[in-house]
Amino acid sequence: MAAPDLDDSLKNLMDTYNELNSHSVEELFSEPSPLEFMRYVARNTPFVIRGGASHWKATQKWNSSYLKSALDGQSVNVAVTPFGNADAPTFSAEHQATVISKPHEEIQRFSDFFAYVTQQETDPDSPSDSEVRYAQTQNDNLRDEYLALYSDAQKDIPFARIALEKEPDAINLWIGNSRSTTALHKDNFENIFVQIVGRKHFVLLPPLFHACVNERPVLPATYIRQGDGFALRLDPDSQPVPLATWDPDDAERNSTHVSALAKPLRVTLNPGDMLYLPAMWYHKVKQSCISGGEGFVLAINYW
Amino acid sequence: MAAPDLDDSLKNLMDTYNELNSHSVEELFSEPSPLEFMRYVARNTPFVIRGGASHWKATQKWNSSYLKSALDGQSVNVAVTPFGNADAPTFSAEHQATVISKPHEEIQRFSDFFAYVTQQETDPDSPSDSEVRYAQTQNDNLRDEYLALYSDAQKDIPFARIALEKEPDAINLWIGNSRSTTALHKDNFENIFVQIVGRKHFVLLPPLFHACVNERPVLPATYIRQGDGFALRLDPDSQPVPLATWDPDDAERNSTHVSALAKPLRVTLNPGDMLYLPAMWYHKVKQSCISGGEGFVLAINYW
Repeated sequence: MAAPDLDDSLKNLMDTYNELNSHSVEELFSEPSPLEFMRYVARNTPFVIRGGASHWKATQKWNSSYLKSALDGQSVNVAVTPFGNADAPTFSAEHQATVISKPHEEIQRFSDFFAYVTQQETDPDSPSDSEVRYAQTQNDNLRDEYLALYSDAQKDIPFARIALEKEPDAINLWIGNSRSTTALHKDNFENIFVQIVGRKHFVLLPPLFHACVNERPVLPATYIRQGDGFALRLDPDSQPVPLATWDPDDAERNSTHVSALAKPLRVTLNPGDMLYLPAMWYHKVKQSCISGGEGFVLAINYW
Repeated sequence: MAAPDLDDSLKNLMDTYNELNSHSVEELFSEPSPLEFMRYVARNTPFVIRGGASHWKATQKWNSSYLKSALDGQSVNVAVTPFGNADAPTFSAEHQATVISKPHEEIQRFSDFFAYVTQQETDPDSPSDSEVRYAQTQNDNLRDEYLALYSDAQKDIPFARIALEKEPDAINLWIGNSRSTTALHKDNFENIFVQIVGRKHFVLLPPLFHACVNERPVLPATYIRQGDGFALRLDPDSQPVPLATWDPDDAERNSTHVSALAKPLRVTLNPGDMLYLPAMWYHKVKQSCISGGEGFVLAINYW
């Protein structure tokens, strides 16, 4: 008896949210104070600081030759997928089911990895079906594999550290090209995203719109190299995990009876921009290279 | 199809909330900074400041003779009910339905009102079925009817004004005795409650537990004097309004299939204590006089 009421009151909530809230991400042009930041946290509302990191050494210095020289001789962990679809809902023909496709992870020399990424992006003859590589280990890699670059970035975001009374749990470097997309998902962390090179295009949805994203339990599967291509192998003994199967950029497919109520916010980060992404907000992230640039996209995030 | 899932996920949320959150209200012993306050706002979490207003003139000076002298000759708006049940779910035998019972409002000389309240409380021979009077107009009355007392209170709560970037919308004075109870309800305001005389006993429930309070649409009805007693008259042309019909102090009656999951927080304010009650939290408020005191309960709240 109570269940249909809940459904109606949820639709109501989503309509009200849409009426009361902005449909674009608020733009600041300088860093907020800790108290101002805390007001956004309290309202569970994202914002972007245009040019907030434009004075960072990373934003000013990191180009192809600098990175290759700083990381000369280093090896790094690389996520490899056939379509740039790491951790995405993927239909496996072999298993006749949608799975979450975890990337094949490989240790590569940084110079090889980086040459591949940039060549794939900038060479017009690069085959459209070549494998996609993305340095995206979210394991505090800027203070580990990429330690040589750490001093060019900030060790924390002061307004967030003071407001939340917490040092960052992890600082992650992300290097890839326009072939990689991060599928719609949420994280249980307050997140500050800093764009260094290229652009990231975020599609954001508040946690309230949970019922729109068609979260379903799917089995995790991992890509393995097989011949010239890839196969998906179900992870042994693993349990289904909940995964958002609705894609706001393909809104008809995999929709629920309330998906049409979702009004995703869209924001593009340019080099030097910072985004506050509140914990538990759904986000999908595409990326693009700046035309005439060196063919890679680089960002840092603070959890 | 989605509705049962919503119901399950709501139960899950409530269980998780109970596991992760304290079952008592956090106690501070001095005022928080605006940033510290904003952290509570962000976590949507109440706290009490023990003795936070013990230095106020109001806390130090307001007794029976001071109030009578300061408000000598004044008339005030008084809410009159048969059972101290203003704005409560009340079964009307005449209408064979539960209604929300709005008080009979009367202008009375302050001296008469105050003598009635204190006499009812302190006179052991006062009949248990005598009408209940409560000065509780929530219309910024401290800056209106009770202006003569305003300078003894603070004009705002600085940590909240700075954090929320807002002067109080209303400052309300509440004068009554132990016969009045405020039924479980929620307000759409951040609320700071300051206890001046006597005690208030709060029962608090986070907004997440909405499904536990059995909110139902009920018709508003207003008490009118009839002979020696009262009758409830349905408000003309008025629509049903949603009202929490579950009473956490009578948990079996009017319960829903999830009411048992609610774990209300209970906190008593003593003179000089302040409570931060986040917007949209359900609260029920009882009051009691200090034994050997002058027989009234007085509090101020800032919205």
